Amino acid sequence: MNKKIKIGIVGYGNLGRGAELSVKNSDDMELVAIFTRRPDQVKPADQSVKVVSLQAAEDFVDTIDVMILCSGSAGDLPEQGPVFASMFNTVDGYDNHQSIPKYKKAMDQASKASGKVSAVCMGWDPGLFSLNRVMMDAVMDKGSVHSFWGPGISQGHTNAVKKIPGVKDAVQYTVPIEEVMDQIRGGASLELTNGQKHKRECYIVAEDHADKEKITHTIKTMPAYFVGYETTVTFVDEEEFNQNHRGIHHGGFVIGSFGTGDGTHRHVAEFSLKLDSNAEFTASVLTAYARAAFRLNQKGESGAFTIYDIPMKYISKKPEEELYKNYL
Amino acid sequence: MNKKIKIGIVGYGNLGRGAELSVKNSDDMELVAIFTRRPDQVKPADQSVKVVSLQAAEDFVDTIDVMILCSGSAGDLPEQGPVFASMFNTVDGYDNHQSIPKYKKAMDQASKASGKVSAVCMGWDPGLFSLNRVMMDAVMDKGSVHSFWGPGISQGHTNAVKKIPGVKDAVQYTVPIEEVMDQIRGGASLELTNGQKHKRECYIVAEDHADKEKITHTIKTMPAYFVGYETTVTFVDEEEFNQNHRGIHHGGFVIGSFGTGDGTHRHVAEFSLKLDSNAEFTASVLTAYARAAFRLNQKGESGAFTIYDIPMKYISKKPEEELYKNYL
Repeated sequence: MNKKIKIGIVGYGNLGRGAELSVKNSDDMELVAIFTRRPDQVKPADQSVKVVSLQAAEDFVDTIDVMILCSGSAGDLPEQGPVFASMFNTVDGYDNHQSIPKYKKAMDQASKASGKVSAVCMGWDPGLFSLNRVMMDAVMDKGSVHSFWGPGISQGHTNAVKKIPGVKDAVQYTVPIEEVMDQIRGGASLELTNGQKHKRECYIVAEDHADKEKITHTIKTMPAYFVGYETTVTFVDEEEFNQNHRGIHHGGFVIGSFGTGDGTHRHVAEFSLKLDSNAEFTASVLTAYARAAFRLNQKGESGAFTIYDIPMKYISKKPEEELYKNYL
Repeated sequence: MNKKIKIGIVGYGNLGRGAELSVKNSDDMELVAIFTRRPDQVKPADQSVKVVSLQAAEDFVDTIDVMILCSGSAGDLPEQGPVFASMFNTVDGYDNHQSIPKYKKAMDQASKASGKVSAVCMGWDPGLFSLNRVMMDAVMDKGSVHSFWGPGISQGHTNAVKKIPGVKDAVQYTVPIEEVMDQIRGGASLELTNGQKHKRECYIVAEDHADKEKITHTIKTMPAYFVGYETTVTFVDEEEFNQNHRGIHHGGFVIGSFGTGDGTHRHVAEFSLKLDSNAEFTASVLTAYARAAFRLNQKGESGAFTIYDIPMKYISKKPEEELYKNYL
């Protein structure tokens, strides 16, 4: 039996909690410690797991093989990522699409300097969806690949709605438009904006005496967030909100429609996810790529790796020979 | 502008014809020649393309970067594959599942000896489906991954039916059972045989005065091929057969249903293909992996690579930096 891969988890929000569960389900891994800013406030699902302050991480350089970075992309990762990559193999779910090249470069420099591997921007988007976009784009011509997100909560849009005066609680679901997906599945090659592919559904608990019409107007005319989208606003009472709108489900679709030869033969490829828990699934992907980061480093690699740079065999729990024999 | 990748195609059946079309659609490639046992009988779609005998292949060692091997898995590839791999980078669609480890080993030895790369067992199954099986298996626990094939023609079953006395022409469609797919999509974790996942539909043109009941009985009781499957046999006249049953469409589904944590949160991942032309799509995948074989070899690699061993970036027509910037 091989030695288990020794894992540390940095950050203990929803993603960190998911990572703890996922590492526990992985026979080839062992959770050494959870690292957090507030060790006294964190209660791991498994109470025997050590909880340690972020500052103490450097004491674990010789005992942890991979750090799963579960901090937020907006504030923490750009700073924390390179610090941890300068000491450990890491995996993260950095998802600020516009800043990915910059983040990847910083992680690459830190990892190369430490001789470690950082697996960056892992999860389902960026992550498995990115992989499918490139795969579909590479194998086919005369067509296009479209990503659809949802049905699921968009945190950014939810926060934007919550800030409107008179809104007590709110949630915003991004919902892919079925008719458009069906057109692409039917072989249509379309150029589409995100607003043509998705609608936005808001469920709102209003303060007493709030002006609901004004709230609705404010939402529908909010630039960047809602303008250009078919948007519905539904007011519900607190009881209904708590019962039906505390979900954590998410998912989406990558659909490619293509032609071969002169384009008369059409082909449709589709990858989809339907997730009960966005955070737990994302954490499972991070855990699989923690395995890859460790293996790549064992092979002498260093630097930052995206999902495009890593052969699939490195994330599998199964030995290579079994993959060739039973999965090909 | 980079130098174009110089391609040779070996074998000119449906797959070889598809490869010619696909190479033509690839701006970074150039078709140098088609190699065949019968050069006088082969008419390429592009009549300016050179057609050469198999024996002359060795004269092209310095002018062809990758050979796309489009010969059959049953007879030709086990012999031809290693011969070509001992001279060229190659890609093939070897699909005899049981013999894959043996074939891979022979290709690995030949490619290592020549210092070239062979990309083996490419296409959609083995190929893209294999990739999805391993990916789904790796990122999730407490569940299972199922492959469904069709609706599409199974050549092996079609040939078995054609051999029955009294059968003039025939086709056998493998059809995935929708209800079973929906159970898995609904989150069920099932253990299923191929017979529980697929039905078999035969369309037959009988000889005049043939005993149709006997033909039906022979089919339904044929061991390995039809026993254990829900099988329907429909007799049609020649006109209808030629009009409706000369199709070349195919496709299938890989569906994984899993749980995270203690298994209460369920997740479903699905990859599917709907193909107008099985051969043309398969050829497109081979062409993309021809690009990968060339690039891997340029980086100093040699030996046999399966779809599990090759990072996705190597099959893309786009520069790496564009992938990180626009596709992640």
